[in-house]
Amino acid sequence: MHTADELLGPLLEGNARALARAISWMENGHPQARPLMAKVWPHLGKATILGLTGSPGSGKSTLTDQLARRLLEKGQRVGILAVDPTSPFSGGAILGDRIRMGRIAPDPSIFIRSMATRGALGGLARATQDAIDLLDAAGFDTVIVETVGVGQDEVDVVSCVHTCAVVLVPGLGDEIQAIKAGIMEVADLFIINKADREGVEQVEQEIEAMKSLSPPKPWDPPVCRAVATEGIGIAEMLELVREHGAWLRGGGGLERKARERAKLRFDSLLAEEASRRIKARAGHRVQELIEAIAKRELDPYAAVEIVLGPGS
Amino acid sequence: MHTADELLGPLLEGNARALARAISWMENGHPQARPLMAKVWPHLGKATILGLTGSPGSGKSTLTDQLARRLLEKGQRVGILAVDPTSPFSGGAILGDRIRMGRIAPDPSIFIRSMATRGALGGLARATQDAIDLLDAAGFDTVIVETVGVGQDEVDVVSCVHTCAVVLVPGLGDEIQAIKAGIMEVADLFIINKADREGVEQVEQEIEAMKSLSPPKPWDPPVCRAVATEGIGIAEMLELVREHGAWLRGGGGLERKARERAKLRFDSLLAEEASRRIKARAGHRVQELIEAIAKRELDPYAAVEIVLGPGS
Repeated sequence: MHTADELLGPLLEGNARALARAISWMENGHPQARPLMAKVWPHLGKATILGLTGSPGSGKSTLTDQLARRLLEKGQRVGILAVDPTSPFSGGAILGDRIRMGRIAPDPSIFIRSMATRGALGGLARATQDAIDLLDAAGFDTVIVETVGVGQDEVDVVSCVHTCAVVLVPGLGDEIQAIKAGIMEVADLFIINKADREGVEQVEQEIEAMKSLSPPKPWDPPVCRAVATEGIGIAEMLELVREHGAWLRGGGGLERKARERAKLRFDSLLAEEASRRIKARAGHRVQELIEAIAKRELDPYAAVEIVLGPGS
Repeated sequence: MHTADELLGPLLEGNARALARAISWMENGHPQARPLMAKVWPHLGKATILGLTGSPGSGKSTLTDQLARRLLEKGQRVGILAVDPTSPFSGGAILGDRIRMGRIAPDPSIFIRSMATRGALGGLARATQDAIDLLDAAGFDTVIVETVGVGQDEVDVVSCVHTCAVVLVPGLGDEIQAIKAGIMEVADLFIINKADREGVEQVEQEIEAMKSLSPPKPWDPPVCRAVATEGIGIAEMLELVREHGAWLRGGGGLERKARERAKLRFDSLLAEEASRRIKARAGHRVQELIEAIAKRELDPYAAVEIVLGPGS
């Protein structure tokens, strides 16, 4: 499986090794990444893409695992992408995969992958989008994208999934409210996890208060209580995801999501590829310019103009 | 103050309105942003840049305020940049500023600004770097960059400050450990805030355990306990920041940081400006390509190649 042609067949059949290799190609900008995506492209559009986002400690990995289990029981094939912003530095991805693998038994119906942040700007958002497409093409019915925190990369990713579930927990204090306010507009669904703890009503009130401050939305995001560690609230959450999906299909929301996602993909890929080509052309000149900036002989705007030529 | 020339004088004198306008110019890509940066550039290099990063609920805003207060008492001028990834969506920045402003009395020696995420790729990291430079040029002795979470933008920002303090709190559970592991390599200093809570020793043990797993570093990041709400540990933290600064100046670390920062600035500005120019040239063709991607008539790699021409 060294070329796009060789990989395509096994990939479309859902072979896990082919899928893992294809995702790595996308992450690393392998020469066969582009031709593979072109071949995969006509096979897309069947999977339901579900985003789960929430603060560290909100228990969203457990929630993801429970959702996956339930969907597997229903005969679905499930892909999980854990977007892991910790990974530029250490083996977070590998570690994460191992931990996660222990929790869900090996099964050809499930595929789990931590998406590591790469150095490239926009790289994480772009690679995650590629991975979603590959899982879709490989016949996974549901793709769950799990994100920690609300960095821009992650916001980009969850803003164009089909259903974005925001996971909250009671008793995490003031600062978290600011984040909640910020992601209000991408949330299609609120999950209050660890709902056996004190303070559930308060979180619910805060969600309602924030909703009342936001402009009314065509889809009013419902609130669902869960205790993921005990499997409580999982069925209810899946029902809400199903309802939201039906609403999307009914009101043209799917086309809007597809357009948003297409724009994100185009923009991030353009920035990445344009930079790559320009730097390749500029060669060792780039290093000299960076040195000159570091020594304050040149400001960064001027350096970029030297490489790009005078702007409009 | 409508041109770079008009703004430069008041800015270098530390005028708050001039500074606010200049930062907005950088954020919005105002035509005068580039000439202003060129004029500001020779005046840089005096400020100490301190990064404070930590999970939501870690109390790092309170910590920042306490640090600022202490530095003000010492006669310093202090700039605070709160990198706020929630702001693409709602008025998080404004809200944040108001809350913060109430905590620290208006004073010409202090400047507080929330950096809002812009739509542009790399925009937040780039605009924050610009703002750091402007505060430096305006004569602020210490610039504190406060970041929520560990998104790639934020990691980019804190990876090239002079001293990066990672704020932890006792009792935030398992998932947070993964994040801690991820930021180990950028941390110059660990603050255990809310150290009057149960579990401080456990956090300390976890930090030590992680350190022992990482390759040894020339600077061994110390651990400092604090209770920011009561002003406990602030003096100790400032002393550690001072020690780390002395170490950096002694061992050539400042040049390394300057080079990393120059590379980040060049890369993010190049991606942003190259994309902007290419899209301006392609005009309405861009919208057509995005539509074609959304309808799955074209894959994003092919679309980018149409705009950029065949790649190498």
